Amino acid sequence: MNIITKLFNIKYPIIQAGMVWCSGWKLASAVSNAGGLGLLGAGSMHPEMLEEHIKKCKAATDKPFGVNIPLLYMELDAIFKIIIEEGVKIVFTSAGSPAKYTKFFKEHGITVVHVIASSKFAVKCKEAGVDAIVAEGFEAGGHNGMEETTTMTLIPIIRKVVDLPLIAAGGIATGGAMAAAFALGADGVQVGTRFAASAESSAHESFKKKIIESKEGDTRLMMKKVVPVRLLKNKFFEDIEKAENSCATAEELRAILGKGRAKKGMLEGDIDNGELEIGQISAYIDKIKTAKEIVDEIMTDFEAAKKRLAGLTF
Amino acid sequence: MNIITKLFNIKYPIIQAGMVWCSGWKLASAVSNAGGLGLLGAGSMHPEMLEEHIKKCKAATDKPFGVNIPLLYMELDAIFKIIIEEGVKIVFTSAGSPAKYTKFFKEHGITVVHVIASSKFAVKCKEAGVDAIVAEGFEAGGHNGMEETTTMTLIPIIRKVVDLPLIAAGGIATGGAMAAAFALGADGVQVGTRFAASAESSAHESFKKKIIESKEGDTRLMMKKVVPVRLLKNKFFEDIEKAENSCATAEELRAILGKGRAKKGMLEGDIDNGELEIGQISAYIDKIKTAKEIVDEIMTDFEAAKKRLAGLTF
Repeated sequence: MNIITKLFNIKYPIIQAGMVWCSGWKLASAVSNAGGLGLLGAGSMHPEMLEEHIKKCKAATDKPFGVNIPLLYMELDAIFKIIIEEGVKIVFTSAGSPAKYTKFFKEHGITVVHVIASSKFAVKCKEAGVDAIVAEGFEAGGHNGMEETTTMTLIPIIRKVVDLPLIAAGGIATGGAMAAAFALGADGVQVGTRFAASAESSAHESFKKKIIESKEGDTRLMMKKVVPVRLLKNKFFEDIEKAENSCATAEELRAILGKGRAKKGMLEGDIDNGELEIGQISAYIDKIKTAKEIVDEIMTDFEAAKKRLAGLTF
Repeated sequence: MNIITKLFNIKYPIIQAGMVWCSGWKLASAVSNAGGLGLLGAGSMHPEMLEEHIKKCKAATDKPFGVNIPLLYMELDAIFKIIIEEGVKIVFTSAGSPAKYTKFFKEHGITVVHVIASSKFAVKCKEAGVDAIVAEGFEAGGHNGMEETTTMTLIPIIRKVVDLPLIAAGGIATGGAMAAAFALGADGVQVGTRFAASAESSAHESFKKKIIESKEGDTRLMMKKVVPVRLLKNKFFEDIEKAENSCATAEELRAILGKGRAKKGMLEGDIDNGELEIGQISAYIDKIKTAKEIVDEIMTDFEAAKKRLAGLTF
């Protein structure tokens, strides 16, 4: 037991990231049933779809689960209404200021966690009264910070600046990496990419296959002029890369991106023309497993890493 | 004791990176005397200067030390001759193929370590017969790999592919990060930035001051069209950034770089117009300490991290 397992009332301090197009009720409930904390990813759901997923998740598990809400979301009011009505107890907010909605959620008895990528925002989280933070490094998939600070560098810096319960994210797919995160000063881990390639992920099978086949250097942080996003290399990636190499403007990049690209790639399986958001650690992952297998394996390897460290004397 | 301390006959598995303009005999001997492995950085020394530093290092310590040789170096033959004549027992090679010179060094009874940033090159190191590898992540200072793989991601991937003694580098400045590297599968750590800002570093005091004052986001990987190099932001950085944002060619970037830029910044202290190579973890470092203080602090914090991990039960 530690500060994170107590905060969420879960067995293991493993949070499944609330990713777009991957994190529906099947994945979230499976992770929660396995002893971690499952999150529904509201970023790719219309309000009525989120409501359905919350209901199904409640039916599928009696364990705690949460919802991740990117604060740049269009239909925030409708989403917030559903969160309250359905009695969701844990909310992770990202891509926005923690100052704006934390008080509102806390007044409704909801545990609030905010995702950040710098100590500057960690301090803002502390001031806003969040219950915990996720500090996400450069190697993480999807949208990312501007400063490119990696998990190895970010966690000790955040730990030095604030005393909030701290969840490390970015590059974490194994129990060894979980132990590493704790050694750096974290109290828990958020795992995205590994669960995106799980059996219960709602990602298209073609996308999952591409994740487990990917190698080092197959992802890169792109679209820095718009919002930085880590993408898996494909035809769409090459189009963006070509434009960026020709000094395309933010507007030109937005035009290439268009609408619905991530859905096309990640949900519908157009792995050539879709936007495939995934972390660097995809290069490590070589098999699709169930959420329970992943959680169990992480905990087994975490114990092995602890034991390996304990045996070192110099 | 472990595979790395045995290989080099040292007390702690802490290697001080052989950095240009920072790693002379004063730093290398101080680190070796403190129980780590000091390295002279041949990359910024003419052969006769390297010879002088080797002689002085031998006079200043009876402990093992080594020399780092970037294989793109101009005067390799002269350097190799001095290494052999002076009886240097440990060589770290970087920025080139391990296939070319490993056999030569091994025939002279020298322990050879090669620096890599991908599993592809780790396999080449194994084939070439090196004794150990340094796997260096994206967050490291100075010259860097093309694939941008971070330390957190790189170490487990390398560990999966080869069974060579593995030294992690990039983002490592504390005992917590050292424990993290071991948890990820490393057998030792290479520390650069922290020692660049040490009392015995030959870096100019103005550069050291800039390192300890730097914050997150103050370094960035630049010059990707030439050779990727992580730089601290200053006037020179801005010139490169401006050129890159205007799609400058490799030749144009080389023209801005000119000759002697790193010496001007790092040794001579022209912190505006010089090239300042440093790692992301500079944002964490806030005090100049002696090499012995740094080594002792890392080991104390390493033990504390081990203890913290051992106390976790879920």
